[in-house]
Amino acid sequence: MADTGWPGCVRSLKGVILDLCGVLYDSGECDGVAIPGSIEAVKRLKESDLQLRFCTNETQATRKNFVAKLQRLGFDISVSEVFPPAPAAIAVLKERGLRPHLLVHDGLLSEFDAVDKTNPNCVIVGDAAENFSYQNLNEAFRVLIGLERPVLFSLGQGRYYKETDGLKLDVGVYMKALEYACDLKAEVIGKPSPTFFQSVLNDMGLKPNEALMIGDDLVNDVGGAQYCGMKGVQVRTGKYRPSDERHPTVIADATVDNLAQAVEAILSQRTLRTLQLQC
Amino acid sequence: MADTGWPGCVRSLKGVILDLCGVLYDSGECDGVAIPGSIEAVKRLKESDLQLRFCTNETQATRKNFVAKLQRLGFDISVSEVFPPAPAAIAVLKERGLRPHLLVHDGLLSEFDAVDKTNPNCVIVGDAAENFSYQNLNEAFRVLIGLERPVLFSLGQGRYYKETDGLKLDVGVYMKALEYACDLKAEVIGKPSPTFFQSVLNDMGLKPNEALMIGDDLVNDVGGAQYCGMKGVQVRTGKYRPSDERHPTVIADATVDNLAQAVEAILSQRTLRTLQLQC
Repeated sequence: MADTGWPGCVRSLKGVILDLCGVLYDSGECDGVAIPGSIEAVKRLKESDLQLRFCTNETQATRKNFVAKLQRLGFDISVSEVFPPAPAAIAVLKERGLRPHLLVHDGLLSEFDAVDKTNPNCVIVGDAAENFSYQNLNEAFRVLIGLERPVLFSLGQGRYYKETDGLKLDVGVYMKALEYACDLKAEVIGKPSPTFFQSVLNDMGLKPNEALMIGDDLVNDVGGAQYCGMKGVQVRTGKYRPSDERHPTVIADATVDNLAQAVEAILSQRTLRTLQLQC
Repeated sequence: MADTGWPGCVRSLKGVILDLCGVLYDSGECDGVAIPGSIEAVKRLKESDLQLRFCTNETQATRKNFVAKLQRLGFDISVSEVFPPAPAAIAVLKERGLRPHLLVHDGLLSEFDAVDKTNPNCVIVGDAAENFSYQNLNEAFRVLIGLERPVLFSLGQGRYYKETDGLKLDVGVYMKALEYACDLKAEVIGKPSPTFFQSVLNDMGLKPNEALMIGDDLVNDVGGAQYCGMKGVQVRTGKYRPSDERHPTVIADATVDNLAQAVEAILSQRTLRTLQLQC
């Protein structure tokens, strides 16, 4: 934690953004399991003078159901604090007058209940998991190839994630499949899209240099936040791999064992600042 | 057919290589349907002094079963004349001491009966169609990500093909998916691999400039053959699209309505040459 920029930025920090899966909990059967120390770490952040938001590429459930799961796991978290890609996608559809064909998880479908899906003129792909069948992928492909100006939105671009029973392919893999099939480039909604990070900063009313992102995904969490001008900290939980610390282009401002350690470092530095200011 | 190179090359031609699906027949329910005039066109080529081979990226059936289907459709064709990717892949496995995990169509599995598949150290992906489930793709991914030096072979790299009930995603799409998931580059076995075309030329004992390839796929058939020094002719059947004739980089030596028209042009030019030689 002697990395350049880490203590310095902490002292002027006004907000913290946390990734969820792999930072607060590991997904898997039922609700998954909380990562040791993370429930208390979230509580400590909430009791501090820092603003707190949660920024996730989770697309297997509606925001409401997803937050309910985190509450069952013991986290003090509310719907308005959580930023997943689906509500951002719905805003984009509205703005551009688009009607989507959805290739998403069954658990996410009701998020799009109020969206006009007749005669689709774009495709949205999310982490559809078991819904990534040959038939469903063919169907999404046929919608795209039949459009004069095909538009593909991808809710994130992750390669894979870890569940309790092993690694699973993520939405980015299927985004690449459809990109190749239709010879087009998808528009990513979710991390690491700068627009997505900016929407969280706007909600907090903060500038990028006043916020810090903590995640387990070096490229999408840490690299994405740094690209926007925030500091990015990686935790050694979730999908973290030791090779991340030798990545050729993305270097975290700090790498810590887990969220509890990150929060301890942040809060102790800030206490020090307060003491200095009081002197 | 006034394209440069077409009549000239025909007069010195010693062999013709035909793609199968989209040139001889359209695939679909049961055996599919022969393209009008193609049965007679193959017969005419066989009766000529030209050597004839069939070069296909078909991987939904063993070579034996696939040839039997073509015979049922009425084509005069034998197993030794047909070059699909699977036997070429088996030769590569043997040469490099590799044991594959197979993500292929059920119909192709028995082609690999004699291949050691225990403790796999590479993955082979073919046109697995319905077998491209989320579960099967995850399994192939986990084999690759677990290898110190992951090796992925793709039997072709097609984007999609046309069946009687519509367009279907081809193996290249799933190759791209696994490439992205594992951050690697697949080795393509099949068209447009130069090694694959060369194996067909070797079997005929011909140099590239003595052979001509006829296919419906501009990039993989025509472009692939031209890259090897052969002439490449595209037919306006199968997956042909009018936009192929405006392709930025691949320009066919000739574009003809169908195989019958191509064969008529080749044979009439050769008759002309014979008459000229006799004068």
